[in-house]
Amino acid sequence: MNHERDNHIQAVLRLEGERVNRWLEESCREAQDLCPPRLLASMRYSLLAGGKRLRPILCLLGAQLFNGSAADIQPMAVALEMLHTASLIHDDLPCMDNDNLRRGKPTNHVVYGEGMALLAGDALLVWSFEQIADGLSRKKLPPARILRALAYFATAVGPSGVCGGQVYDSDPESQKDGAAFVQRIATDKTAKLIQASLVCGALLAGAEGLPLAALESYGLHLGLAFQIVDDILDVTGATEELGKSTGKDATQGKKTFVNLLGIDGARAAARDETEKAVEALRDFDDKADLFRELAFWLQDRSR
Amino acid sequence: MNHERDNHIQAVLRLEGERVNRWLEESCREAQDLCPPRLLASMRYSLLAGGKRLRPILCLLGAQLFNGSAADIQPMAVALEMLHTASLIHDDLPCMDNDNLRRGKPTNHVVYGEGMALLAGDALLVWSFEQIADGLSRKKLPPARILRALAYFATAVGPSGVCGGQVYDSDPESQKDGAAFVQRIATDKTAKLIQASLVCGALLAGAEGLPLAALESYGLHLGLAFQIVDDILDVTGATEELGKSTGKDATQGKKTFVNLLGIDGARAAARDETEKAVEALRDFDDKADLFRELAFWLQDRSR
Repeated sequence: MNHERDNHIQAVLRLEGERVNRWLEESCREAQDLCPPRLLASMRYSLLAGGKRLRPILCLLGAQLFNGSAADIQPMAVALEMLHTASLIHDDLPCMDNDNLRRGKPTNHVVYGEGMALLAGDALLVWSFEQIADGLSRKKLPPARILRALAYFATAVGPSGVCGGQVYDSDPESQKDGAAFVQRIATDKTAKLIQASLVCGALLAGAEGLPLAALESYGLHLGLAFQIVDDILDVTGATEELGKSTGKDATQGKKTFVNLLGIDGARAAARDETEKAVEALRDFDDKADLFRELAFWLQDRSR
Repeated sequence: MNHERDNHIQAVLRLEGERVNRWLEESCREAQDLCPPRLLASMRYSLLAGGKRLRPILCLLGAQLFNGSAADIQPMAVALEMLHTASLIHDDLPCMDNDNLRRGKPTNHVVYGEGMALLAGDALLVWSFEQIADGLSRKKLPPARILRALAYFATAVGPSGVCGGQVYDSDPESQKDGAAFVQRIATDKTAKLIQASLVCGALLAGAEGLPLAALESYGLHLGLAFQIVDDILDVTGATEELGKSTGKDATQGKKTFVNLLGIDGARAAARDETEKAVEALRDFDDKADLFRELAFWLQDRSR
């Protein structure tokens, strides 16, 4: 049963991931001749360095759940990966985590220098908004719908979202102790963007009301489970397997679920968030089975 | 005559600038309790450090020219200053220009550290898009109009705009020689955002067709004149007067209009761009007089 489930999930992730990769390649091709070649090379290097493409895939699945077309969602999906890549490039900089390995390759600033990595992150960040505003308008989606998705996305990544979470994560003076605080970091730094991926896909497909709220709740809990599993894998996983440096949380004295709860406690917390995520979808029929499978599959990664 | 003109322009800039400052204070107040206090402090430090508020003021004037209301434009005006401030914070970082003085005060990273300055820039950048998408929607402006302004703004600041211009300006490998190249840097790094300030204000007020195209042309030439004057003042101005380090272009071997054309040549180029800017407005009646005065006033700053 689990084996069947895992095969199914992995097939979906692989297929949708390949589609997203083609889209990202396409965006980079379209940007040629429009921006400095070295800037494009630097952005492209990190954008096409692999990765699971989880956020764009969640966006596609969120749209599918409400009968949205994948083609219409393309700019939103691409934007989510651009934004995520921008945050990784900046996060790896010497003044932040000072990491030299990401997705199995040297980090952006190691290859292109700090100044270019800074600007590549900035440019990807702005490009993501350009994709949404300009790209989605070309798809002839209703402007009000596009604006709502864009505002949701901006709030998820701005001062009270990813950027704020990075501050809590990296600035000792901004940190306090306790479980609530680890939860705060995980919510702002990770869960809000995962939630936004699902919600923006759904919003663009016309979702509203209770079904949208249910998906929103699923997204938050899935995002928290994702961060908890990530914290666990940083301790138990191998660098080769994850394609990024492991064991760094402890070295850097980061506040993680594992530090707070221990490995077993963190696994229990992941189980708890997974249950809440699945419970949020109780009013959906079997159309949401993929979302349920995905949550359980994710939780099992931490075993 | 010039004295009268200067008094008029300075009064407009002062009054509108005060309004913009109040709006920026308001935005910071509203962000309280929504994001990490130290992040807000860092963003606020640079956002409220003074400055001419030229971009928001141009946005207001662009809207006024097409009978738009200032209150409706507020989020767009605020967004322009947030984005501009973000670009200054990142530009001052050690991996870029490594500057320690801006608007007469220590730069952001000198006060808050490099990591926080990086994140404050990122957060201001995203916040600017949040202002446009969310703030303008609350003003009940037509969604299609908001989206068009947002896309114009994003293009002006993205890989082919400000970010690309910063790369040309700072990355020796991306630079080639010649007049066209200095023009390219000035266009992307400076003129496109000044142009976007005017155009976004006008777009939100419902401008279209030839009048919009005329203002767009004015904005590009005004923006180029602005950069040329800035290059001149970097050589001739005093640090105290400008509130930022001067003479750094030469030290850093930057490609500027003064390096390319000499002081007199640069003054002639500023004159030329000013004439083109004013000429672009030939079909406007005396309603556009303020724009004409502004262009001449700006040019005279380089004397």
